[in-house]
Amino acid sequence: MLPPEIHSILEEMRAERIRGASYLARRGAEAYIKLAELLSGEELRKALEEMREEIPVVNRTMVSLYNLSRFIPITDNSGLVRAKAEEFIKLSEEAKREIGNIGSELIDENEVILTHSFSSAVLEIFKAAKKKGKRFRVILTESAPDYEGLALARELESLGIPFEIITDAQIGIFAGKATLALVGADNVTRDGAVINKAGTYLLALACHDNGVPFYIAAESFKLHPELTSDEVEIVERKFKRNHLLIRGYLFDITPWKYVRGIVTELGILVPPKEI
Amino acid sequence: MLPPEIHSILEEMRAERIRGASYLARRGAEAYIKLAELLSGEELRKALEEMREEIPVVNRTMVSLYNLSRFIPITDNSGLVRAKAEEFIKLSEEAKREIGNIGSELIDENEVILTHSFSSAVLEIFKAAKKKGKRFRVILTESAPDYEGLALARELESLGIPFEIITDAQIGIFAGKATLALVGADNVTRDGAVINKAGTYLLALACHDNGVPFYIAAESFKLHPELTSDEVEIVERKFKRNHLLIRGYLFDITPWKYVRGIVTELGILVPPKEI
Repeated sequence: MLPPEIHSILEEMRAERIRGASYLARRGAEAYIKLAELLSGEELRKALEEMREEIPVVNRTMVSLYNLSRFIPITDNSGLVRAKAEEFIKLSEEAKREIGNIGSELIDENEVILTHSFSSAVLEIFKAAKKKGKRFRVILTESAPDYEGLALARELESLGIPFEIITDAQIGIFAGKATLALVGADNVTRDGAVINKAGTYLLALACHDNGVPFYIAAESFKLHPELTSDEVEIVERKFKRNHLLIRGYLFDITPWKYVRGIVTELGILVPPKEI
Repeated sequence: MLPPEIHSILEEMRAERIRGASYLARRGAEAYIKLAELLSGEELRKALEEMREEIPVVNRTMVSLYNLSRFIPITDNSGLVRAKAEEFIKLSEEAKREIGNIGSELIDENEVILTHSFSSAVLEIFKAAKKKGKRFRVILTESAPDYEGLALARELESLGIPFEIITDAQIGIFAGKATLALVGADNVTRDGAVINKAGTYLLALACHDNGVPFYIAAESFKLHPELTSDEVEIVERKFKRNHLLIRGYLFDITPWKYVRGIVTELGILVPPKEI
């Protein structure tokens, strides 16, 4: 029922390997804008009903997509759909800026920041800290098998922020050399557990063992209103290397007790320690 | 001063990427046998003095090479050198067999064993358990960037032992699905810290967090007589991916407190908890 233009955006979103939940939510909002251009009236309403099913399953672990699909009303008013989708994008951009602003205050002079995978919220914090004239260094993982870390490295290179790249297996070694850890999230459950790129949990454990504060950066639309950590369903993409099948869970779950705080546009949330 | 045949063995040892400390120690012993064939008298003595320097620096982290270089006397008697080198190989083989025998007793019916990198001692335990008719499953890491895990997978395939391969970053996820962890060691320091392929420390932390017993398998010649964990010098091999330089520490250090026991040919050693 959805127009081919929309199907091709959804397909592109499903194929995305490097960029995370924030990017996909924005791309999803753009799909809604496109939909509002193409359809109206009853056709639009039906397509919106379909989108409410389709958008979250692009990646079930990314709650931003779920929240986007709930943010857009089911209506036959294409102007309203367009306005809400644009509002979502604007709120996302403002959230990202504010996260940069708040999060950069965590960075002290000569901080050595350990991160994993590529989070646009974390990048925003680095940009804001750089703009404030802070000097700091980043240790980042290559993040196999899709190597999102290398994309982050290119961004840091162009910003003139010094960095070193490590293999994922060296997280434990470099946790001992870092003074702060900062990663993104695809989903924060109601009980404060952080769903993020596989390896994040290991980074949290290594930081805990080395006394390094471990922070998450995430827009509030990544907070899941209902889900608890034991209900999380982790998307898997198996792949082959030298003809051997490799398991490929994309995300892991870091319990709240290892998280010092979650930097959101609303401020730094401290996970509910009593749960 | 060393003959070209010996230089080429040393070079091959330095270039080895997949096989570990036990293999290199054996190859080193073979270099001594070769040396005893080629030289005698004063020439041999001088060459042996050189070997005592050269063998340990093939890989400073691998104490088996250090211990081998101390096991072979500095003498002009080529028969003695040959006999000692052969004794070293024989003791290594006996040790490996006995580790298999002792270690396989840790494996209960339907055990799910998590391992990292490729340890010939761990493989020996798997072989012995299989021979005893035990049914168990192995979860193994691919172990980037040299993918020793894939070599282990081939061995398990040929033995008919069921296995699954995971990326290193998924260690945390699969620690929650394992019932036992078993890895090798390149070096066990005097204070019980385990030096093994980078990522081992993360595996130990994840096992600790999930209540999974974490064991090491290592011949007694991997126990360092003098070194303590804060004196360990970790060998690094940087490499490039997409023109970007990646840090490459080969090993990490797992403190004794995360180790349930070290399976040696002498029995299962419990690390000195009082240190």
